[in-house]
Amino acid sequence: MRTSRLEAFSDGVLAIIITIMVLELHAPDGKDLGALLHTAGIGLLSYLLSFVYVGIYWANHHHMFQLTRLVTGGVLWANLALLFCLSLFPFTTQWVDATLWARTPVVVYGLNLLAAAIAYYILQTVIIRTQGKDSPLRTAIGRDLKGKVSPAFYIVGCVAALVGGGGTGARPGMWVAVACYVAVAAMWVIPDRRIETAIAVELVPEHDQSGEPGDPSGEREHS
Amino acid sequence: MRTSRLEAFSDGVLAIIITIMVLELHAPDGKDLGALLHTAGIGLLSYLLSFVYVGIYWANHHHMFQLTRLVTGGVLWANLALLFCLSLFPFTTQWVDATLWARTPVVVYGLNLLAAAIAYYILQTVIIRTQGKDSPLRTAIGRDLKGKVSPAFYIVGCVAALVGGGGTGARPGMWVAVACYVAVAAMWVIPDRRIETAIAVELVPEHDQSGEPGDPSGEREHS
Amino acid sequence: MRTSRLEAFSDGVLAIIITIMVLELHAPDGKDLGALLHTAGIGLLSYLLSFVYVGIYWANHHHMFQLTRLVTGGVLWANLALLFCLSLFPFTTQWVDATLWARTPVVVYGLNLLAAAIAYYILQTVIIRTQGKDSPLRTAIGRDLKGKVSPAFYIVGCVAALVGGGGTGARPGMWVAVACYVAVAAMWVIPDRRIETAIAVELVPEHDQSGEPGDPSGEREHS
Amino acid sequence: MRTSRLEAFSDGVLAIIITIMVLELHAPDGKDLGALLHTAGIGLLSYLLSFVYVGIYWANHHHMFQLTRLVTGGVLWANLALLFCLSLFPFTTQWVDATLWARTPVVVYGLNLLAAAIAYYILQTVIIRTQGKDSPLRTAIGRDLKGKVSPAFYIVGCVAALVGGGGTGARPGMWVAVACYVAVAAMWVIPDRRIETAIAVELVPEHDQSGEPGDPSGEREHS
Repeated sequence: MRTSRLEAFSDGVLAIIITIMVLELHAPDGKDLGALLHTAGIGLLSYLLSFVYVGIYWANHHHMFQLTRLVTGGVLWANLALLFCLSLFPFTTQWVDATLWARTPVVVYGLNLLAAAIAYYILQTVIIRTQGKDSPLRTAIGRDLKGKVSPAFYIVGCVAALVGGGGTGARPGMWVAVACYVAVAAMWVIPDRRIETAIAVELVPEHDQSGEPGDPSGEREHS
Repeated sequence: MRTSRLEAFSDGVLAIIITIMVLELHAPDGKDLGALLHTAGIGLLSYLLSFVYVGIYWANHHHMFQLTRLVTGGVLWANLALLFCLSLFPFTTQWVDATLWARTPVVVYGLNLLAAAIAYYILQTVIIRTQGKDSPLRTAIGRDLKGKVSPAFYIVGCVAALVGGGGTGARPGMWVAVACYVAVAAMWVIPDRRIETAIAVELVPEHDQSGEPGDPSGEREHS
Repeated sequence: MRTSRLEAFSDGVLAIIITIMVLELHAPDGKDLGALLHTAGIGLLSYLLSFVYVGIYWANHHHMFQLTRLVTGGVLWANLALLFCLSLFPFTTQWVDATLWARTPVVVYGLNLLAAAIAYYILQTVIIRTQGKDSPLRTAIGRDLKGKVSPAFYIVGCVAALVGGGGTGARPGMWVAVACYVAVAAMWVIPDRRIETAIAVELVPEHDQSGEPGDPSGEREHS
Repeated sequence: MRTSRLEAFSDGVLAIIITIMVLELHAPDGKDLGALLHTAGIGLLSYLLSFVYVGIYWANHHHMFQLTRLVTGGVLWANLALLFCLSLFPFTTQWVDATLWARTPVVVYGLNLLAAAIAYYILQTVIIRTQGKDSPLRTAIGRDLKGKVSPAFYIVGCVAALVGGGGTGARPGMWVAVACYVAVAAMWVIPDRRIETAIAVELVPEHDQSGEPGDPSGEREHS
């Protein structure tokens, strides 16, 4: 099975997920800035966080399938499981927003992040197993430090929200949870240079013969 | 007519169908776990079931068009009829969810599944007729056991819901119907290895000459 | 400019238009068949009609760009104008449905169909002008009988709805209008064989050298 | 990293943004023309303006990536930042529409336009820096007059709305703001011929060997 159609379908689903979250942002009830901040202020920040997360998953998914050739049934369904987890972001984001980051929604949002991370890990594992030994993907991800640290952060965030995110006061646990979720996003926004390097190594030989010496910018097209 | 644009359009429609169902999941009315389970618990399970069904249709559609070369007007409209049936899933899923799996909605959901199965069968038949004798698609599907068993399950589910899904008690018919719908989904999640084999046989000769012996992973790209 | 990205973007927009109309179909208020027919019966038929129209435009757009090589700024904006007209279908369909095919909405729906037909005609004319004499598209559409008859039908439908579609009785004008809209859709569902023939003539020479004699189905892939 | 998948993803997101704005247009409350104009008149014009803006960004994005070969992490995230700004259009358009172009929403709409322009400028700068000296994109945009004038117009519009767009009377500032936003859109609808020329110069040599002398329309396909 071709990876191109699986990538195109995943791109479509991710593009829709990342965009429909804005449909949950209802127009403010009033006409002034106060109404905007009151009605949509937290919504905009929640939307931004989820937008960045879907963007991260798109970029990593993109990188991963650069090193994937064979799509088996297992890869296909692991990929759909990942898309399902990501498709719940609009729902959990909306709940978090509607309740102004209350305790249970923040925990559920963290569990959604955790579920997506696990689904991504399963997809990665299925692809590596498909590729057998000398798997280029396994070589590329190396120790996969970021992939292992992220779930820990999500769990810390969930526990913090559970323990100290209730009540009507300062709710320090909620701030810890939000800090955890934001920290993981920030960590991933830095793109995965190891995989980029592996792709470059893998792709250059194929195109070496057709190198365009007259290219004015001195770049190569890997398409 | 090229199959590539028909596939891209179908992918787009399927990606949207599979994703917009999440828009029907409204944020829970309360802030606690009870509110989540009460408001969205059944909705999440209904969404999961429909998500899996659209995923199955996408995968099978994908496999089918791997073996299709010629897009006639008949294929085009049979394909649009299938997309129309599938596009009703968000509507029937929402009704089933809003009524907590009441009798009539469960029957209508089953009829929707049945209509999609019939539309898929018609599309398959139109493509096979277009390909004439020695149709690679006909060879690939063989006796098409799963394709023939599925409608029977849908009909059993509909009848069970009609007969024993009413009232306010235990409603055994409803459970039989749900079991039927889930069973068919589970049956199809196992990908269609016969078609995969036929594709492999069909595609390998084309690429044999351009085999990349230096491929570190020892795989082939069929793209 | 490449036609491929313009086609991909148009496919995306058309796929979304054809699918989001189902979001306007709200779940019936009750649990029985009467509620379904009462709440969503007319909605389903309106949705079907608009679905078929968007499908027709997609198929014709597809055919037209098979014969188009050059995308100028004029083509780009004529295409966006067509997409804008088509993107209003969910809006007018919803109004027609919400008012149970009242007089003004039926006229507005007809004007929307007319606007889309005019935008399509302008796009076609811009492409033909870009191609200069010996335009393959002009040759393919020939006298463009269907393209000229359709607007007449829309106008007849609008006038009939205006004249005899009001009041609370039988409203014959409304039925004439619906008949006109359905008749045009039925006329176009038959795919445009003249363009298909022209594409075949145009594409076959390019691929003649790379014919795959071992293709078991005896077909050619024009991709 | 390939530009093709980044372009496909951006196309998907832009196609969704441009289309979902129509979901904010609710069906008029009444059955007559007055209801249409009253409920949806301003909404339709706002939708048209935002549709044109997204169309402009799509066309310019399209042109820009014709001259881009290398997608670094910086390009990827600058692109996602642009998509985020554009994805807020449905939200700000809806607010402007719901408040009948009140002062604060008009300013916020202008700030949204400004943010998108800045994000586009950053993306352009990141790509040019990636390409090093002899950047084909920098050569193509030249002095980038339109890119520098647009933000000035947006700022003038915002200030005008702030100063003279309040109250319940004639609100001249609001008209100045709308005129500014419409003027920039009109300015950009004229496609960027300089980049088109640069693309032609860049692409023709690659395809020179495979020129199709038998092409009846005398055109070249750059796909």
